[in-house]
Amino acid sequence: MSLVLDSTAQDLLFREARTANTFSDEPVTEEQVQAIYDLVKYGPTSMNQSPLRVVLVRSAEARERLVPLMSEGNQAKTATAPLVAILAADNEFHEELPQLFPHFPQAKDFFGDRSVREHTAALNATLQAGYFIVGVRAAGLAAGPMSGFDSAGVQKEFLDDDHTPLMIINIGKPGDNAWHPRSPRLSYDEAVTTV
Amino acid sequence: MSLVLDSTAQDLLFREARTANTFSDEPVTEEQVQAIYDLVKYGPTSMNQSPLRVVLVRSAEARERLVPLMSEGNQAKTATAPLVAILAADNEFHEELPQLFPHFPQAKDFFGDRSVREHTAALNATLQAGYFIVGVRAAGLAAGPMSGFDSAGVQKEFLDDDHTPLMIINIGKPGDNAWHPRSPRLSYDEAVTTV
Repeated sequence: MSLVLDSTAQDLLFREARTANTFSDEPVTEEQVQAIYDLVKYGPTSMNQSPLRVVLVRSAEARERLVPLMSEGNQAKTATAPLVAILAADNEFHEELPQLFPHFPQAKDFFGDRSVREHTAALNATLQAGYFIVGVRAAGLAAGPMSGFDSAGVQKEFLDDDHTPLMIINIGKPGDNAWHPRSPRLSYDEAVTTV
Repeated sequence: MSLVLDSTAQDLLFREARTANTFSDEPVTEEQVQAIYDLVKYGPTSMNQSPLRVVLVRSAEARERLVPLMSEGNQAKTATAPLVAILAADNEFHEELPQLFPHFPQAKDFFGDRSVREHTAALNATLQAGYFIVGVRAAGLAAGPMSGFDSAGVQKEFLDDDHTPLMIINIGKPGDNAWHPRSPRLSYDEAVTTV
């Protein structure tokens, strides 16, 4: 084996983990979400920008505002998942850089231009979204990430002009018939080349 | 504990894993990269688009073309890392969708517009870059992801108009003084809100 990670963990995080389309009624606790965050917050970002922000949709009122903003195929599962999380990029992340990157106080000055900030915030927050999905699986939960939603509507209802929604993730224990059959993946030679 | 993943694996992937700035001479083998890919290829993407493409820079000639395209602070480590990988988004990923998403043959038709493809390819390939970094760590290797490079130059030298570079990652066993001190992270309450 070329991997150091034990095979149980490999299965939990990647090989047996699947995108769930139905969920059981078992709640996702605050402690679980905090444990996920406190693990994946260590994943690397450029200059430790850490621009990912998460909005947990817990109240019935908030869920009712969110569901109609999902594309039709995502509405039923978003209405019934134990927990729904909106993942967003903070385009004003540079305000936190003096705290997050203390050994280089000039770092904030690189990001005076909003379009530069939006580009790097999207890149780094999406990288963190990848870590977050791995973290949900590390908690023994299934993640159902979705990019089919009214982005401007979600931003207006749940965020502000400084936060761009990236994806919405249903989280919980899988329910009945939770999976589609596993789709094929590209082979190593199709995805990786050497120069 | 709210996590199912064992604490050794938590440490390997997140808590003790660090972005390396120096590397040992030990080579990174083809078998290791293939094992990483064959694990992380299962990470979810929207409609299984799987737009991440990886270029492994193995030859001395290719390394010599890459180093001057890195920003100054990234040149020395890129010159000496055992392996350097260019991670890119394939903006023509829709050509593979009939193979990757076989139960919905019309999927390809959603992506006739190049600007739509570029947006979703960047999002999903960056998500896969997050899984890839986790996979490098799963192989017991350190990753040094970098976004400071001449993107147009890397695209011209190593890719083509259909592939957008996302980041460049140095990979290997850590060397002497490989780490900066760990920078602080945002607390749970700073990054996560509930509605």
